[in-house]
Amino acid sequence: MARALRLAEAGRYSSHPNPRVGCVLWRDGEIVGEGAHLRAGEPHAEVHALRQAGERARGATAFVSLEPCNHHGRTPPCTEALIAAGVSRVVAAMEDPNPLVAGQGLARLRAAGIAVEVGLLQADAERLNRGFVSRMRRQRPFLILKLAASLDGRTAMASGESQWITGAEARADVHRLRAEAGAVLTSSDTVLADDPALTVRLPADYWAGRGLAIPGATGRGSPAAPTASLASHAGGDNAIHGAVAGLRQPDRIVLDSRARVPASAKVWAEGARRFRVTTAAHAAAPVAAGVESLAVEPDASGHISLPALLPLLAQRGVNELLVECGPRLAGALLASGLVDELLLYLAPALLGHEGRALADLPGLQRLDQKIALRYIDVRQVGRDLRILATPEPLSPPPRAGEG
Amino acid sequence: MARALRLAEAGRYSSHPNPRVGCVLWRDGEIVGEGAHLRAGEPHAEVHALRQAGERARGATAFVSLEPCNHHGRTPPCTEALIAAGVSRVVAAMEDPNPLVAGQGLARLRAAGIAVEVGLLQADAERLNRGFVSRMRRQRPFLILKLAASLDGRTAMASGESQWITGAEARADVHRLRAEAGAVLTSSDTVLADDPALTVRLPADYWAGRGLAIPGATGRGSPAAPTASLASHAGGDNAIHGAVAGLRQPDRIVLDSRARVPASAKVWAEGARRFRVTTAAHAAAPVAAGVESLAVEPDASGHISLPALLPLLAQRGVNELLVECGPRLAGALLASGLVDELLLYLAPALLGHEGRALADLPGLQRLDQKIALRYIDVRQVGRDLRILATPEPLSPPPRAGEG
Repeated sequence: MARALRLAEAGRYSSHPNPRVGCVLWRDGEIVGEGAHLRAGEPHAEVHALRQAGERARGATAFVSLEPCNHHGRTPPCTEALIAAGVSRVVAAMEDPNPLVAGQGLARLRAAGIAVEVGLLQADAERLNRGFVSRMRRQRPFLILKLAASLDGRTAMASGESQWITGAEARADVHRLRAEAGAVLTSSDTVLADDPALTVRLPADYWAGRGLAIPGATGRGSPAAPTASLASHAGGDNAIHGAVAGLRQPDRIVLDSRARVPASAKVWAEGARRFRVTTAAHAAAPVAAGVESLAVEPDASGHISLPALLPLLAQRGVNELLVECGPRLAGALLASGLVDELLLYLAPALLGHEGRALADLPGLQRLDQKIALRYIDVRQVGRDLRILATPEPLSPPPRAGEG
Repeated sequence: MARALRLAEAGRYSSHPNPRVGCVLWRDGEIVGEGAHLRAGEPHAEVHALRQAGERARGATAFVSLEPCNHHGRTPPCTEALIAAGVSRVVAAMEDPNPLVAGQGLARLRAAGIAVEVGLLQADAERLNRGFVSRMRRQRPFLILKLAASLDGRTAMASGESQWITGAEARADVHRLRAEAGAVLTSSDTVLADDPALTVRLPADYWAGRGLAIPGATGRGSPAAPTASLASHAGGDNAIHGAVAGLRQPDRIVLDSRARVPASAKVWAEGARRFRVTTAAHAAAPVAAGVESLAVEPDASGHISLPALLPLLAQRGVNELLVECGPRLAGALLASGLVDELLLYLAPALLGHEGRALADLPGLQRLDQKIALRYIDVRQVGRDLRILATPEPLSPPPRAGEG
C-alpha cells in the first residue's frame, strides 16, 4: 500500500479535479502490475496496473489508495475491470470520500466474490487527497493561505515596496505549491497593486525528483520517480519560464467585488481556467475573454461572502485552493475559520513598525481573541523559513456583558 | 580537548566574569585528572585537575580550553602549578583573548621546557567564551537581544495586554538564558509597564542534564554531566521559585535615562548586582539601596548612548548581556549594529494589524534599509518557535542625492 501511495503521488501536480490514486497488483510474492492516475480523462490507476499485469492479474491482490470507482465517467468503472481480470482480493486505503457513492465500489467487488479490505494506511491516503476529500465531504476546497513577510511580520514597506522580501528558493516553492494546489485565488487589491501572473514558472530541472519532469513508460514508474508518460503532454519550449512538460497551469480566481481588474491584467492571460468573482451588482461588468464570471452575494460588510464562494469553486472541480493575497483578505479568511493550512514564509529581516501588516484582524481587543495556530512543520527554504501551521478552532465570541 | 570543553561547560551558569575553562590531564593512554572552573575566586580548572592527578601529573599532557593564566589574581598562576607538577606538554584551544596578556602564559610554559601547542578546537572554545572574548577584545559584552511575539510580529494587543503570548516552556528557556548570560538589561519603559523581576526562577529539576543541579565531586564530572561541587553553594530553600543550588542570579541593568523607576520596582530587589543607567543630568536622582547608579552621556536624540554604555558594563565584568525590552530599545539596538544575536520566540498565534510592533525602526523608507539577518538555529520550545539569528553588517546609509 505504501507503494500504491507513492505511485499516487505521481498525480500530485496533474490529476485534479480527480483524486490522486495508485494501484499495485501483487501475486506470488511479487509486483505484477502497477499504475497511477495522472490526468482526468486518462485511464485510472487500476487500468494501468491491469494492463501491465495481463494474465498475471488472475488471483492477484490489488492494493489501491482509494476505493475503485463503480460508475461510468469519462472512463469505464474500475470495479468491472478488476472483476473481469480475475483479481481475488482488493485492499483499499480508504472509501470514496463522496458520501453518496462511498462503499458502492467495494460492495460491487464483494458481490462478485472478491475479498475486500479497507483502511490500510488510511490517514496517509486521506492526506494525499485532502483536496478531493474536502470537496466531496465538505463541498468546498481545502484552503491553503500562503503569506510571506519579514521576521517582524511585515509584508511591505510603508511605501508599498515589497519585491522581493523572500528569496528565489521560497518563490520557487510557491510556484510548486501553485502547481500542486491546481487553483490559486487572490484579490483585486493584489492584482491592482502587483499585477501578478499567478502561473507556475519553474526551470525543468526544478522538477527532477519531484515526480513531474521525468518521462517514463505509461502506467509504470520507477521506484525513484513513480510517474508516467508526462513528456507526451503540452510541452514548454522555454525551459526556464515556460511550461514544464506535463504541467497543468493552475486555475486563477480573482475576488473582484466591484469588477475593477482590467482585461489587460496578467492574471487573465490564457493558459488556464480563470474566474472573476464579483458581487451580484457587478456581475454584468465586462470581463476579459475566456474568463468565467461568478457572482456571489455580499456579506454583511459588503465584501464577497467567502463561505458562499467556496462551494461554487468546489462545484467547478477545485480540490485545493492556494490563496495568495494581502492583509485584508488574509485576515478575513482567518477570522472566518475557512483556512485549513497557513503557509508562512519568513524572510531573515526586520522591516520595523511602519511596515505593512501580515493580516488585518479588526476588532481584536483581548489576547484570548487571537487567531490560535499549531505549528506542523518548519524548515528553511533558501535563506527563508517556511512555517506550516494549522488554525485551531475559533474561540466563541464573548457573551454579552463580557469583555 | 573535546572533553576539556565539555568540562568547561560546567561553568556556563556560574563562572562569569571569569571564562569557562576545562582541563584534562592525559598520561599513558588515560585520563589522570580533570577539572573545571566554576566560580571566580575558586580554583581554576588546571588546579582541580592537578590535585586529582597528584603524582601522575608528572609527564602528562594537559589539554586546556584556554591558555593558562600567568598572573596572580585571586588565585596563584596556573602556569606555575603546571610547571611544578612536571607536566610535559600543554595543548590549549586558544590564547587568552586579552590582547595585553595573550601568549604570556604559553611563553612561560615554553620557557620552562614544556612543549606547547595552541589552536585545537579553537572555534568551539571561542564560542563557549564568546562573552569573555567580547569583553577582552572589544571592551563590550556579547549582546543577545531576546524578543517574543506572535507569528505576525506583535508583542501585545493594542490595549497593551501581553501576558502571556509565549508558553511556559519558552519562558523557562528565557530564565535559562538569563542564568547563562549573567546579566540582563531592560528599559524603564518595560519596568514601568510590566514590573518584571528579571530573576531566574526555575524548578530544580529543570536543571537536570543542564549541568547545574547535579552535585558531584570537586573538580571531577561524570561524562553525562561534567560539573563540580555545586551543592555546597548558596542553596534554594524553595525548589520551585527559589534559587537552585549553585545558581548566581544575573546582574540587572535598567536604562532609566530620567530616573523614573521607583525604588519599589521588583527589578531592584536584592540578590544580584543592580545598575541604574541615567543620563548625566539625572545621575544624582535617588536610587534604591544597593543599586549602583551609572551616568552616560545622551546621544543626539537625547537617549542613553548605547555605544557609550556597553564599555561601562564590560568594565564591571559583564561578559554576556541579555536584553529584554520593548520595541523602542530593540529597534535602537538593532539600528545601532550592537546586537550580536537575536533570539526570537514566536508564538503560534496571530494578533493582527493593531497589535504592538516587535521593533520600532523609524525612518526605514526602502527595502534595502531593512535589518538583514541570518538564521542560525530554529527549534520548537513547547508550543512556540525559538529562532536564533545574527544580524548581517548594516548597509551604509544612502549617499546624498540617493533615496
